Amino acid sequence: MSVIVQKYGGTSVADAARIQNVARRISVRQKAGDQLVVVVSAMGDTTDRLLSLAREITSHPEARELDLLLSTGETVSMTLVAMALHDLGLEAVSLSGAQAGLRTDKVHGKARILAVEPGRIHQELERGRVIIVSGFQGITEEEEVTTLGRGASDLTAVALAASLQAERCEIYTDVDGVYSADPRVAPDARKLLEISYEEMLEFASLGARVMNPRAVELGAVYNIPIVVASSFKDEPGTVIHGGADMEQGNRVRGIAHDLDVAKVTIRRVPDKPGIAARIFEALADRHVSVDTIVQNASVDRTTDLTFTVHVNDLPSASKVVEELSKDIGAGEIVADDSLGKVSIVGTGINSAPGYAARMFRTLSDDGVNIEMISTGEIRITVIIKRSDVDQAVRALHTAFELEKPDASEL
Amino acid sequence: MSVIVQKYGGTSVADAARIQNVARRISVRQKAGDQLVVVVSAMGDTTDRLLSLAREITSHPEARELDLLLSTGETVSMTLVAMALHDLGLEAVSLSGAQAGLRTDKVHGKARILAVEPGRIHQELERGRVIIVSGFQGITEEEEVTTLGRGASDLTAVALAASLQAERCEIYTDVDGVYSADPRVAPDARKLLEISYEEMLEFASLGARVMNPRAVELGAVYNIPIVVASSFKDEPGTVIHGGADMEQGNRVRGIAHDLDVAKVTIRRVPDKPGIAARIFEALADRHVSVDTIVQNASVDRTTDLTFTVHVNDLPSASKVVEELSKDIGAGEIVADDSLGKVSIVGTGINSAPGYAARMFRTLSDDGVNIEMISTGEIRITVIIKRSDVDQAVRALHTAFELEKPDASEL
Repeated sequence: MSVIVQKYGGTSVADAARIQNVARRISVRQKAGDQLVVVVSAMGDTTDRLLSLAREITSHPEARELDLLLSTGETVSMTLVAMALHDLGLEAVSLSGAQAGLRTDKVHGKARILAVEPGRIHQELERGRVIIVSGFQGITEEEEVTTLGRGASDLTAVALAASLQAERCEIYTDVDGVYSADPRVAPDARKLLEISYEEMLEFASLGARVMNPRAVELGAVYNIPIVVASSFKDEPGTVIHGGADMEQGNRVRGIAHDLDVAKVTIRRVPDKPGIAARIFEALADRHVSVDTIVQNASVDRTTDLTFTVHVNDLPSASKVVEELSKDIGAGEIVADDSLGKVSIVGTGINSAPGYAARMFRTLSDDGVNIEMISTGEIRITVIIKRSDVDQAVRALHTAFELEKPDASEL
Repeated sequence: MSVIVQKYGGTSVADAARIQNVARRISVRQKAGDQLVVVVSAMGDTTDRLLSLAREITSHPEARELDLLLSTGETVSMTLVAMALHDLGLEAVSLSGAQAGLRTDKVHGKARILAVEPGRIHQELERGRVIIVSGFQGITEEEEVTTLGRGASDLTAVALAASLQAERCEIYTDVDGVYSADPRVAPDARKLLEISYEEMLEFASLGARVMNPRAVELGAVYNIPIVVASSFKDEPGTVIHGGADMEQGNRVRGIAHDLDVAKVTIRRVPDKPGIAARIFEALADRHVSVDTIVQNASVDRTTDLTFTVHVNDLPSASKVVEELSKDIGAGEIVADDSLGKVSIVGTGINSAPGYAARMFRTLSDDGVNIEMISTGEIRITVIIKRSDVDQAVRALHTAFELEKPDASEL
């Protein structure tokens, strides 16, 4: 009998009727002979409601208390799913992050999973029970509850799948798979039947909100096939894996975009060793994730250093660099919170000629000004004005003929 | 430095403003030099909301899952109180029942505290922190979360006070003390400045909803002075203790009443040994608390057996006795869910002559029919029609001159 890990997101368990729907789906699969470990997120907008409750109390909720507070959201949904399964006559038990053995480090709010100790899960599976596990949370060596960051229930699911050597991990959400672009922006976007971990990672990192990038990464490391599908439909979703048949190469698979980009420029940074390290270490210490970094050629032994962050991180990022700029003898700080980014993603495209040129030409023909460019192994990304993003996505989707099926699907 | 345990009920932490109010009260006391351990209930009607959420899913939520679900209510309030204290610049930490060392047995929904292991609390107190503890919950040997029953945050508070050898336990609630009768029923009811554990226990057991009876009992066993006061006022409340100055004796201290009484009568129970034991063992197995029991004199070797339960327990109680009555060869079952009870309470009143007579005379003069009578060490209770209860309370309050101050208060 094979173990399957499923994960249901917040919209899939948003109310009693949807929880009962999830229970019925689990029941069908369990009766078909699968051993199921099911990870759930908090119901609907619970996490946001708890956050605003905390903010009513204080503008700076302490991270340790906030983690305990937020962890209640998943505890509520997991117990309700277990009850709904009992109501269908199934044996089921819900387990907190602690009970499921999700050990993490101590970084409250953004904890990393150190190990999964699945003793209790194995024990419950042997008793024939469906296991419901609270997503998003873990426990430290000191028995303190931690959370893994927004959207990290995916990570819980993939970590459990790896630890249990599950056949696959199924992520059920409110979209029915991974598309060649956001269908709300590009109406002729197509659902991809399969995609490699690397491509999915780029999509996820670049703003496609289908799945948590850390979860994709973990799936790649442990080679766990991940299926992304809708919990509301009975349609096949997108399979994310690393198989040989993925080697299509030299083809743009999709367009990713992100509307929440902010840019910080530090003027006249002294051009000597160690300066960039100090800046990005200071940002890392405040848990600010930096995305694209661009440094201009040196003029007069100073240089302009620009980096992008999520708009929500802009206040922290600005504060860090304001503090540092005097120390390091740099000039003024310029921040811009009105940006977005658009990427083309596909294995091999960056090493093959012509993709970058076609991308820039398409944007230029559409009158879209490029502010920054960054490239990765399998993607090319441009930072542009937020107001240009939708138009850029549609233009690139058409230019790379993404409305046409992949060779493998013909 | 002395340890004080405080407990704030659900109405005292019902919203952000009230939580901030509680934090200010704690802050004042902490700055005055007390070491504070604070037990909190769930916010407002949270427990009821969680219960109805569970009932939307299933009519029979499993006890183990329900406990995990309900425990989230106190987790939310405790973390918010801790955050509010941080906001005032205090060092504070919230602890779950598990973290606070509240070990219980495995009876989900009505668990009993087996031990308090206050290692973590001592550790945090030594660091100068205010400790916020989740009321109402504990943990079993198998690390399963249990709840102690409705209103059992009081019990958590007294158990912690006993284990920490606290100077006293302060119960803050939405009433400002213990009254000679419910002021909503008897407008000239007086707040009692002090009361013995035994008297308070009778008041609590008999329906005065000021405090959980199990908590009073525990306070008596460990001789912990308990103060009941309002969290909204700065007035002294009622002190519950066992001191020598409590020996006022021979005086009715107050009238307790309860509107939620149901009665079950089993007709023609064979009058032989072991029958009553079987009935009440079966009820205990289903966790039905039986209150008053009356058995009539035997006629034809059968007897009518009547007992009262809380109206909410009537369905379970009826089911148990219906099942048993065939087995034991008894007659039909008669249930009545329209009753209430009224008690006069005071140390020594049952051993002194005249109290019972005056009570029955007063009710008779008011045209109140007595259905059942039961007496205890320090109380006399009558079961009457629910619709007669208010009138009976007022009549007895006047008959025993309870509007007049105690000798000790003059």
